[in-house]
Amino acid sequence: MANIFSSLKNAYNLFKHVDFDKLEALSKKVDLPKIVETISSLDDKQIQGMMKMMGGGSGKKKELPPIEGDFYHLGDEALKDEDRELQLKVRAFLEKEVKPIVNHYWNKAEFPFEIIPKLAELNICGLTYKGYGCPGKSNLMEGILAMEMARIDTSISTFFGVQSGLAMGSIYLCGSEEQKQQWLPLMQQFKIIGAFGLTEPEVGSAAAGGLTTTCKKIDGKWILNGQKKWIGNATFADILIIWAREEESGDVKGFIIKKDNPGFAVEKMQDKMALRIVQNGIITLTNCEVEEADRLQNANTFKDTAKVLQMTRAGVAWQAVGCARGAYENALDYTRTRKQFGKPIASFQLIQNHLVDMLSNLTAMQTLCFRLSQLQDQGLLKDEHASLAKVFCSSRTRDVVSSAREVMGGNGILLEYNVARFVADAEAIYSYEGTKEINTLIVGRAITGFSAFV
Amino acid sequence: MANIFSSLKNAYNLFKHVDFDKLEALSKKVDLPKIVETISSLDDKQIQGMMKMMGGGSGKKKELPPIEGDFYHLGDEALKDEDRELQLKVRAFLEKEVKPIVNHYWNKAEFPFEIIPKLAELNICGLTYKGYGCPGKSNLMEGILAMEMARIDTSISTFFGVQSGLAMGSIYLCGSEEQKQQWLPLMQQFKIIGAFGLTEPEVGSAAAGGLTTTCKKIDGKWILNGQKKWIGNATFADILIIWAREEESGDVKGFIIKKDNPGFAVEKMQDKMALRIVQNGIITLTNCEVEEADRLQNANTFKDTAKVLQMTRAGVAWQAVGCARGAYENALDYTRTRKQFGKPIASFQLIQNHLVDMLSNLTAMQTLCFRLSQLQDQGLLKDEHASLAKVFCSSRTRDVVSSAREVMGGNGILLEYNVARFVADAEAIYSYEGTKEINTLIVGRAITGFSAFV
Amino acid sequence: MANIFSSLKNAYNLFKHVDFDKLEALSKKVDLPKIVETISSLDDKQIQGMMKMMGGGSGKKKELPPIEGDFYHLGDEALKDEDRELQLKVRAFLEKEVKPIVNHYWNKAEFPFEIIPKLAELNICGLTYKGYGCPGKSNLMEGILAMEMARIDTSISTFFGVQSGLAMGSIYLCGSEEQKQQWLPLMQQFKIIGAFGLTEPEVGSAAAGGLTTTCKKIDGKWILNGQKKWIGNATFADILIIWAREEESGDVKGFIIKKDNPGFAVEKMQDKMALRIVQNGIITLTNCEVEEADRLQNANTFKDTAKVLQMTRAGVAWQAVGCARGAYENALDYTRTRKQFGKPIASFQLIQNHLVDMLSNLTAMQTLCFRLSQLQDQGLLKDEHASLAKVFCSSRTRDVVSSAREVMGGNGILLEYNVARFVADAEAIYSYEGTKEINTLIVGRAITGFSAFV
Amino acid sequence: MANIFSSLKNAYNLFKHVDFDKLEALSKKVDLPKIVETISSLDDKQIQGMMKMMGGGSGKKKELPPIEGDFYHLGDEALKDEDRELQLKVRAFLEKEVKPIVNHYWNKAEFPFEIIPKLAELNICGLTYKGYGCPGKSNLMEGILAMEMARIDTSISTFFGVQSGLAMGSIYLCGSEEQKQQWLPLMQQFKIIGAFGLTEPEVGSAAAGGLTTTCKKIDGKWILNGQKKWIGNATFADILIIWAREEESGDVKGFIIKKDNPGFAVEKMQDKMALRIVQNGIITLTNCEVEEADRLQNANTFKDTAKVLQMTRAGVAWQAVGCARGAYENALDYTRTRKQFGKPIASFQLIQNHLVDMLSNLTAMQTLCFRLSQLQDQGLLKDEHASLAKVFCSSRTRDVVSSAREVMGGNGILLEYNVARFVADAEAIYSYEGTKEINTLIVGRAITGFSAFV
Repeated sequence: MANIFSSLKNAYNLFKHVDFDKLEALSKKVDLPKIVETISSLDDKQIQGMMKMMGGGSGKKKELPPIEGDFYHLGDEALKDEDRELQLKVRAFLEKEVKPIVNHYWNKAEFPFEIIPKLAELNICGLTYKGYGCPGKSNLMEGILAMEMARIDTSISTFFGVQSGLAMGSIYLCGSEEQKQQWLPLMQQFKIIGAFGLTEPEVGSAAAGGLTTTCKKIDGKWILNGQKKWIGNATFADILIIWAREEESGDVKGFIIKKDNPGFAVEKMQDKMALRIVQNGIITLTNCEVEEADRLQNANTFKDTAKVLQMTRAGVAWQAVGCARGAYENALDYTRTRKQFGKPIASFQLIQNHLVDMLSNLTAMQTLCFRLSQLQDQGLLKDEHASLAKVFCSSRTRDVVSSAREVMGGNGILLEYNVARFVADAEAIYSYEGTKEINTLIVGRAITGFSAFV
Repeated sequence: MANIFSSLKNAYNLFKHVDFDKLEALSKKVDLPKIVETISSLDDKQIQGMMKMMGGGSGKKKELPPIEGDFYHLGDEALKDEDRELQLKVRAFLEKEVKPIVNHYWNKAEFPFEIIPKLAELNICGLTYKGYGCPGKSNLMEGILAMEMARIDTSISTFFGVQSGLAMGSIYLCGSEEQKQQWLPLMQQFKIIGAFGLTEPEVGSAAAGGLTTTCKKIDGKWILNGQKKWIGNATFADILIIWAREEESGDVKGFIIKKDNPGFAVEKMQDKMALRIVQNGIITLTNCEVEEADRLQNANTFKDTAKVLQMTRAGVAWQAVGCARGAYENALDYTRTRKQFGKPIASFQLIQNHLVDMLSNLTAMQTLCFRLSQLQDQGLLKDEHASLAKVFCSSRTRDVVSSAREVMGGNGILLEYNVARFVADAEAIYSYEGTKEINTLIVGRAITGFSAFV
Repeated sequence: MANIFSSLKNAYNLFKHVDFDKLEALSKKVDLPKIVETISSLDDKQIQGMMKMMGGGSGKKKELPPIEGDFYHLGDEALKDEDRELQLKVRAFLEKEVKPIVNHYWNKAEFPFEIIPKLAELNICGLTYKGYGCPGKSNLMEGILAMEMARIDTSISTFFGVQSGLAMGSIYLCGSEEQKQQWLPLMQQFKIIGAFGLTEPEVGSAAAGGLTTTCKKIDGKWILNGQKKWIGNATFADILIIWAREEESGDVKGFIIKKDNPGFAVEKMQDKMALRIVQNGIITLTNCEVEEADRLQNANTFKDTAKVLQMTRAGVAWQAVGCARGAYENALDYTRTRKQFGKPIASFQLIQNHLVDMLSNLTAMQTLCFRLSQLQDQGLLKDEHASLAKVFCSSRTRDVVSSAREVMGGNGILLEYNVARFVADAEAIYSYEGTKEINTLIVGRAITGFSAFV
Repeated sequence: MANIFSSLKNAYNLFKHVDFDKLEALSKKVDLPKIVETISSLDDKQIQGMMKMMGGGSGKKKELPPIEGDFYHLGDEALKDEDRELQLKVRAFLEKEVKPIVNHYWNKAEFPFEIIPKLAELNICGLTYKGYGCPGKSNLMEGILAMEMARIDTSISTFFGVQSGLAMGSIYLCGSEEQKQQWLPLMQQFKIIGAFGLTEPEVGSAAAGGLTTTCKKIDGKWILNGQKKWIGNATFADILIIWAREEESGDVKGFIIKKDNPGFAVEKMQDKMALRIVQNGIITLTNCEVEEADRLQNANTFKDTAKVLQMTRAGVAWQAVGCARGAYENALDYTRTRKQFGKPIASFQLIQNHLVDMLSNLTAMQTLCFRLSQLQDQGLLKDEHASLAKVFCSSRTRDVVSSAREVMGGNGILLEYNVARFVADAEAIYSYEGTKEINTLIVGRAITGFSAFV
């Protein structure tokens, strides 16, 4: 640390062109040391962004390179350098490691376990959590990475979301400090794979009211009975977060169940036409015994479960964006090379009409989700905001993938052309984490003040 | 100005808690004096915004009051205090002065001249221009005000857009300094009303190629011949910017024509079913003589005309948002009070479905236009960005007003319920400043590299 | 029964021009006595239909002239000669007498009384009723004429529907023989104009449950109190069918009220943006006295009212078809002559896409309504059939008129181009005689077995 | 001509059971000789149709049992008894033999060869052809059976269409009498399986212009070279109709190639996400030698090929109807039993809205196709009629299957619930035998007079 004299000298040099009257006035309004601290921590790009923001634009026309699926430059304009770098690194990984193998696995309805260690290396699991080896980044960044993953494959993105969001999130939000210490660092490294068991055969996404899996404390142990359906990662997960209703109190509690727990059985769901890579299981619990130590200590009512869902729902909207973007980019490429009547089909009005329709939906989704994540990062997110984004994005994504397939003619139904898979997967996104109907009624209640669920 | 000694003392006091090493390092990266200058010019809210942005959010959950048509809080979050204040002032004016009279005038297809002086008082004309009495504000702010106006009445918003954007914009971008001095301050105060004459009976929005109105220089004067159609404000404008093709060179030139100019005649267009308040004229020029001094000195080719159009196109997208927002808010209110089968219709699933559909489109449009204006303020706006927004917003607005009318049943076709007018006006927005088809092909060309216009 | 000899003689006379070889051969293939029995039971119309049908399916390839809005040749293939002739006569009348004046009246929101005597001359009022001067034609024919009228103007078609369907229909279905004799012949000739008052300010199309207008019998007279809204023709009707609930019994009864009846007042509804030619009134009944003789003698519960509505609902579906057809045909014509970039816009892919989309919807509506009327003529029509047609046709018509306006660009909002009016009027069709929501729930109940109204 | 006496005697015999009073009365209303003449000229089928028709329109209200997917009673009203019986027989076969196995095969992308002999027993192959063991039924009947097949499985329906329509049709329309005798009876019995090779890797449905597979006559033999793609049944067909362009003349010729022909190779197309049961092949012809005797003797230009396509195109529209109907019926059943919030989801407004939307589209498609087949049976069918139906039905089917899946929530993506397969297969129907774009431009050309293909 410099002594006062040299400080003053430095200050003089530094500030000789500064208007000190203004500075003094300013010092009354703001915490100057903190500003210096903060600005110092910014990188070049952020500083330029800040200057620009404050000045309202340089006025110079800047030419940005065209980016197919980011028409309004949300990525290269709005992210910090390190975040932008991370985005591009994740994208490169997906294009190099995932894209080449994904149609094959999808077709066989199997999971590519070989990518798990590579995913771990990216160090993006538990992205927004603080501590426990997690990077502590923004929700916006998490959303953007969800988009990147789904842009290449929605199944992989779903696998990741179950691990990082639902399973780790349950422990992060509802676990004791001890439980967090025990599981989160290992899960962040994919050394432990998790699953999240809420949905049941007869109880869909609006699960609260009707959960039928029960838990009962007998002699200090919990006994669980019931069935869970659609549980992603369930066939190979090391631990599963299982939600059950206590018979006496009616409260919903959460448990960490290990795969070899007696009374726990899982069966792979067959014959899906969407997200075929995701291994969904039907779980049967038959007098399944769990220690009190493996009960999530801070999950006492369904409201606690709901916190986990609220946290992850924005991510599903971003997945929809990624799915649409992947389909759009593949379709655009195709139309620029496929010829009909002697010229690229991209030169026909009817094809351009489809492309522009897709792109306008895609761009609207991107700006909507961008703002959604900002609300989340500002602590303003409510259920209805996320539900609106889920409804809008999953609906528009259906339209986008449908047009993408259409411009590819018959080739659009062949997996190798990289659009058919998105068409199928969009159906899953459309329905999971709350159907369009349920999410519509959540928003409807918020804006009208009337509940119309029943 | 303080002498150096007191400066240093002040500096010492100001900076005693500052980490000078960091500050010194920072001074190498940034222009410190400029930063101080800039930060000093910010108001409290901006400073808080900046701190927040840099710190990534306070983490505290803030409860914002619900705002019907601004579901994602774009207004109260993203505007500077003074801009937010201006937005609310303009809104209040519209609700108090315009809303009560607008159905009456629309029905009679007449213009409410009494509001012109009140509009002038708002001091928002020529909002983004620098100098000539204009406020020099951001394009984002201009977009938001266009939304506010269209939210109450799209005709008034159009009247304003012709005056502030097209007519003044032509002079601002293509006029000589003398012409600017002569006209802009008066127009900014609505003491002179302007019009913009480009479209012709057989030549639509893609006017460039086929303009048939001619100009010819004879004995130092310009002689104009031809017809213009759809010219807003034309029946009562004091001056009209007329675009004509020079016969010899083929170049398009612009002229400032006064309403009493011999050879100039205008006829009011009758029987419109949309924007009935806007007075569109058919202009006939018969050997209309114009002085060289009234030729726009910097308009030499169609590219210069196009600059004006490019500048205003984002505003049309924002108008669409306003039109949709006005319809949505009126419909929402209606459904909360109108009863059927003994309960408010807002409590029925089918009605909520419409409302949420409207709101999701509205919110997507808002976030899209928000980003569009940011691009414009950053100097990144290209034709295709604006065209995409025009296509998306004017299409979705059609959907929104249509649903708004539907939830109101028969009452939706009565002007007094404040939705019928939006339904009709949405059709005009949909087609002016480039039909959906033309704008689609502009975007299509940009993304595919192929022109499909012909 | 005639004896054999006279039989033979008769046979001789009957068959002297018959080719007996053929007849003998035929007798081996068919059951001749049964054929005679059957043919004898047919009415004229059926016999002509049979002759036509037998002559139609020749297997020869017949070239029909192209008919713009009847792509699948429903008119010239499926109608009897005299019906086809009537269709073309009505069409010619509409094009000659109605089309030239209709935009003018629509714009001024006034009714063209001069066409009433000409309409009377067509002798198509009360088309399906038997007796009382009515033609006794099929429901199919009535539907087709509703389409023809709406094809030129939906307001005129609505005026006609109120007179012929709702007002006369109430008397035809619910009146005593004396009432029928008194009113139907005069109404069939348009010497008496009728109206139908069911809807109330707070009670929409699903009126049954909540009718608030009351009737009470005091000293042998009925006293009516309450309000009716949206009553077509009400401002100038000679008689009005008014439906009211008897306070004591709760039953709905119908009354024939004359326009000068004390206690009866009507006010014209202003500022509609659709069906502006139709004169809707708000009726106020203040201790309005009606003789028992003017009570519809066979209307005792709401079920009787519902019979009238059921009978007319198919007609609304046909009106939607006509509205769509009018818009389509005008748009098609426009696109074949309007040029852009030097060629007719009908030669662009984007325009053809709109046209084909319109035509496919139009053709689907036509075949659907055709079958609907067949069901009606076969006595198989149920509420849900008509409701399905109403929902489908009024929804698709909205799409068609919207595309029609779109291909016309800005000119689409000018009444003179003959599409703007259809755009506005389609909104009224969409909501009257049961909104989309109400009709959807009627069908929904029929197919699921569950009522979801409340 | 018989003399009077024998005439009378014959008359006596013929008419002894006839009610002469009725006959006499009838003779005053109708032209009896003409009736006899006409009836005599009818075939059995027409006579039965007439009897049925005459017995149908009784005016009595008939209550028909509700039929889920035939809301407007097209089946039980409009078909002759024997045809109705055949329809129900085919339906029973499909439900009993095909439905139980089809998800399994679809999932494995294999063909259920065991059903071929059972299909043969139905005796419906080559349904409309006259002679060669074919039933000679109407095009309407063929359409209805295509719907029945696709209602259970679109792949099976496609397999059948390739055999009965494309392969046999090529021989029926373009083969010599000898070729017909040789192949059609065996193919009608499925003893020989056929395929139809027109589409190429780079040449889609608008094949005419650009066919690149060549044929050349050398030393009395034809040498074929080139590739074909998407050829249904190709991997196991006994014979394949291959279309190739003669190098010298440019004319397109057709050939019957046997599977073991040297120079002929076929590879199964993998990884389709739709119609997975259909075995599409990529065919490679390498100096493939064909005898003149195996050239289709009456296929000399592309117009001859087009005749085959025209004949089969209506069938594709009917397949779309079947696909939609299958999805709708399964979805309706599901919603009536699946419970949420304690009641069947069919009782919710949002679900009924979907169901009614599906049903209205389905019913519109049915009436449209019904009329289309009537035009075909009347010899009035043109390309543009079939193209319109293809566009309308395949588009609306996409909507129907999409809604069907939606009301089933997550279960909609499991094959076992019998809707997922229709969702996927609808994509194939949408694109084969001419994409929406190509068919739109065919109709567009017909109605505007302008070709917009290029």
